[in-house]
Amino acid sequence: MSAKIWKAGLIVIGDEILSGRTHDKNIAQIASWLQVQGIRLTEVRVVADDMDAIVEAVNILRVRYDYLFTTGGIGPTHDDITVDAVAAALGVPVVIHEEARAMLADYYQDKPGGLNEARLRMARTPEGSELIPNRMSGAPGIRLGNIYLMAGVPGITAQMLDGLTGTLEGGAPLIAETVGAWVAESQVADMLRETEKAHDNCQIGSYPFFREGKVGANFVIRSTDAADLKSCVDSLCAALGEAGFDFTIGGI
Amino acid sequence: MSAKIWKAGLIVIGDEILSGRTHDKNIAQIASWLQVQGIRLTEVRVVADDMDAIVEAVNILRVRYDYLFTTGGIGPTHDDITVDAVAAALGVPVVIHEEARAMLADYYQDKPGGLNEARLRMARTPEGSELIPNRMSGAPGIRLGNIYLMAGVPGITAQMLDGLTGTLEGGAPLIAETVGAWVAESQVADMLRETEKAHDNCQIGSYPFFREGKVGANFVIRSTDAADLKSCVDSLCAALGEAGFDFTIGGI
Repeated sequence: MSAKIWKAGLIVIGDEILSGRTHDKNIAQIASWLQVQGIRLTEVRVVADDMDAIVEAVNILRVRYDYLFTTGGIGPTHDDITVDAVAAALGVPVVIHEEARAMLADYYQDKPGGLNEARLRMARTPEGSELIPNRMSGAPGIRLGNIYLMAGVPGITAQMLDGLTGTLEGGAPLIAETVGAWVAESQVADMLRETEKAHDNCQIGSYPFFREGKVGANFVIRSTDAADLKSCVDSLCAALGEAGFDFTIGGI
Repeated sequence: MSAKIWKAGLIVIGDEILSGRTHDKNIAQIASWLQVQGIRLTEVRVVADDMDAIVEAVNILRVRYDYLFTTGGIGPTHDDITVDAVAAALGVPVVIHEEARAMLADYYQDKPGGLNEARLRMARTPEGSELIPNRMSGAPGIRLGNIYLMAGVPGITAQMLDGLTGTLEGGAPLIAETVGAWVAESQVADMLRETEKAHDNCQIGSYPFFREGKVGANFVIRSTDAADLKSCVDSLCAALGEAGFDFTIGGI
């Protein structure tokens, strides 16, 4: 019996990503964090601040994966519509979450403007939600069933992930080792394919680069099993050595 | 009659993005390039090196949008399956493109290993394709109908985009102006919403940040019409000034 593989989807919400203005950092951040939890990020969608687009993505991905994360659109301004879209997707009303209101009242009590109407928007949640605290801005993330609504600002999402660490059920984390070589990947393509084929529980990714006027590549071997991983890495290193290529474990 | 808005989808293909190992740069690069062509990037999907996942995304997005771009998976190794997946999605065979074979033969003639079998994989295209040249690596991008297959390495994709500049039909480019202020966005949320509402052909995005221990925000006003844009920017600046907030045109 093979162990269950836990999977997650991610929806990145925001016109600023689709316009090219903002370079997304949340995909890599959430992907790396999920790896450590033993959960595999399997699909990401980037959608605009558009109700229909968000609702469609939420309703497909929340069913398809064990967990669904979203980033963006939970702030105080008119373009922050993630809470409304998730509530619409699930067919539940939006309510003021009293615990969130209290957190915000506390956070804004000594700040100019106090807890005004715009800020109170950040206490709105789909009915039935729990909060995901963050120390940075007072405004919490939101969990509803298997859906986790995180901030668009990467530093705030980092705080929310920190609070969630160890609370999600996952499987064996996918572990990885990298072997780098100053070789064109096209010179070793057969070697990579055959090495992967000979090691059942392993995948090999090949990531070429150009640096200092030379071609090279990093080969990333991934497995859920440490012994399988080591065996595959050893085989690949032996094959590279036999073919006369220098290599560096850990990557270059 | 309002002018047609040209839209594009993007599929980023690669386990390395979903594992968090590689930070994607192609979304922002392609988004910015499309803006200049008068085409709006409307949706992005990031999928694994997995045939079914790529086929599904291709078949949905190529119909939904005027243009579909993909990045990744067109190299010489076993995990490069984008050409096969796009051919499967369209129900056409994969063939060796003679012009691509000639380009690769020329590029590899003085390189170790020459045009070996792995490198010849990069001459495989879905039947009926045209090539998108790149000066950097010899291996071309591929166009088939409204689908554009680009490299995963951002520098190579940049070359391919350069070759495509001005060749795609688009509409009026979305133009933008940024107004920055050292203000919490929650202090001006009403102002932003009302300003947007008063200017039909404009959207305002609000992007908060924390720097040097202070909160601030950039407000990005977007429109396809320069006069509408200016009018909206002027209104927002006037409102910020009246409320006593310093602001910087161009953003902070």
